Formats: sequence, C-alpha cells, structure tokens
Amino acid sequence: MGKVLWHVTMSLDGFIAGPGDAMEWAFHYSHPNAAVDEVIRLTGAVLSGRRSFDVGRRPGQAPQAQKPYGGAWSGPLLVLTHRPPPDGVDPDITFLARDIRGAVELALRAARGKDIVVIGANVARQCIDEGLIDEIMVHLAPVLLGDGIRFFDRIGAAQVNLEATGIERAGQITNLRFRVRK
Amino acid sequence: MGKVLWHVTMSLDGFIAGPGDAMEWAFHYSHPNAAVDEVIRLTGAVLSGRRSFDVGRRPGQAPQAQKPYGGAWSGPLLVLTHRPPPDGVDPDITFLARDIRGAVELALRAARGKDIVVIGANVARQCIDEGLIDEIMVHLAPVLLGDGIRFFDRIGAAQVNLEATGIERAGQITNLRFRVRK
Repeated sequence: MGKVLWHVTMSLDGFIAGPGDAMEWAFHYSHPNAAVDEVIRLTGAVLSGRRSFDVGRRPGQAPQAQKPYGGAWSGPLLVLTHRPPPDGVDPDITFLARDIRGAVELALRAARGKDIVVIGANVARQCIDEGLIDEIMVHLAPVLLGDGIRFFDRIGAAQVNLEATGIERAGQITNLRFRVRK
Repeated sequence: MGKVLWHVTMSLDGFIAGPGDAMEWAFHYSHPNAAVDEVIRLTGAVLSGRRSFDVGRRPGQAPQAQKPYGGAWSGPLLVLTHRPPPDGVDPDITFLARDIRGAVELALRAARGKDIVVIGANVARQCIDEGLIDEIMVHLAPVLLGDGIRFFDRIGAAQVNLEATGIERAGQITNLRFRVRK
C-alpha cells in the first residue's frame, strides 16, 4: 500500500497562496528540484480539493499551473467536491463527493500500490483530522506574503506532532520533509 | 553598526505561540543549538514587544521563558510599550513608547556595535514595514499548532522577498536563515 503525502509549496509565513489566490511567487521559485522529481516518480494518484483544482485552471493562469506538477506527472486525479463541473470530461479526472476517509481509500486504490499526493489546505486538514497523512513535504519559498490562503488552520484541535526526516536546499527553495507521529 | 536580526521559533504552520500563548511545544524542542549560541554571542541588545515580554513573565511560566534566551544572554532589553509596568526596576530593562525606527536606533546604540535581536510578531512586523530587518533566523519546530499567534500577518501589503542563506538541522529543529532583500 502506498503512502499518503501532503505536498505543498509554502511561503516562510505559512501561506500556500497569496491574496486573490496569487501563485506567481511559487512559480518564480519552481526551479528544477530533485525532490519534486522523486515525488512525481513515486506518485500513483493525486487527491485535490476543489479550490486548488479551480485555481490551477483559472483563465490567465500560467499553463504549468493547470495540471498537477505542470503536466510532468500523469495519472488519476481525484477532486473532492459537492459540485462537479458540468463540462469535466478528462478521463483522468474523477470528481468525488464523499467523506475524506473514503476519498483517500479510493485514491490509494487508483494509485495501484504507489503513493498518493494530497493537495489543498482544506482536504489536507480533513486528512490530518482523521490521521490519514503519513508524510508532509514542504517546499519553503523565501518570501513573506502576509496574507492569503493558510497552509494549515485548525482552531481548537490538539497539536499534531511531526518528526523531521529531511532538509535540503534546492536553489532558493528549502525542502522540508516530515513524518506524522501517530 | 550591528545587524537587526528577527529571531523566532515557529511551528511548521507558522505560529510563534499556541492558543493561550502556549509555549510548551517550543521549550520541548529547545535542545542545544549552536546557531542559538552564536546569536547569543553576537547580540548586544534585545528589542521586544510587550506581549512577548509579558508571556515570558507569566506566573507559572517555565523559568527559562522569563529572560531572553533563558538567561544565557544578558544585556540591555528594550521593551516597546505604551504602558510600562509600575514595578519594573531591573536596570537592564528599558520600557519605551516611541516609533519603531527610533526604538531600533536606540537598541543599536545600546548594543554598542553588536547585533540586535527583535522578538515579537507585532514589533517584527513594524520593523519589516519600515525596512529595518536585515536578517531572519527561524527555528522551525516539527509540530502543527493550528491556532495561536501568527509569525507574520500583514494584510494588504506587498510581499517581502528574502534570500535563503542557510539551513541546518539541530536535533528535531530546523534552523533557517534569510537575508531581507531591500
């Protein structure tokens, strides 16, 4: 069975998107990164929130934003949503409206033994709530955004303890890897 | 003239204190850290916000929280506040009610050529607004808090670009060092 990896690019101050879902700061630093290549190689399916999916497909968005890993990865993409778009016909994309545990199970099945990647703050938080995340890989960008979509927000819940398993620089990006202590 | 260093311990999700100003998570990871020893060696004065100062002195707080660097550093501590406590008589502590630029100038003068350390989210944000921070050192703790006092919050302002100058592990803590691009 594959692992569940929460994979995210984040500003130093903990935002995964700037105001108005701005992502230019992240693309600016998306130089070659061997750790990302490794994730792409090991990933069998991607489970995305609807917001992350839509942000990647906004008109005017950079082309590399429109597919997971800018098209460098291909495979089943599962999008968690209660309002599937009427026009979605890419056979690799499945729109799901189910509980997070069921969605992760489906994604793992679709990954056929490889890992799955979770994208999107809301979906990731639901996974954390249910103890479904095995590892977190953060690409830390050297920028303070001050405002936008938070990496993680969870009022009133217990802290989640991690184990730092790896750090390395890739140009100006810092790759941080953690295991979730369960 | 010394540098202005914003020095902070932060959870992976960008909090410098948990709910109710909880700091136990940070002390839990405050193992020996050569990077902290180096900061202590180079620091001539500390400029703190009132909240950080008060949190360190709460009744029941761990003794190591009550002085900057748990007493491992000594020197002039400048606390920015409009309501100085009536009982403050430690000769090393000065309470200031002035604009941030004046406060940083005073702290640099008190540091006599050594660096100054800025502590506290509010004071640090004011310094960032005025372009007064030279470097940021973050000690990243392997924990998700979900709620608490944010490392950095600044609605509606431009992003601040940094240069990653160093990363290293110190036990479970990741030391991240940045220069502020001006």
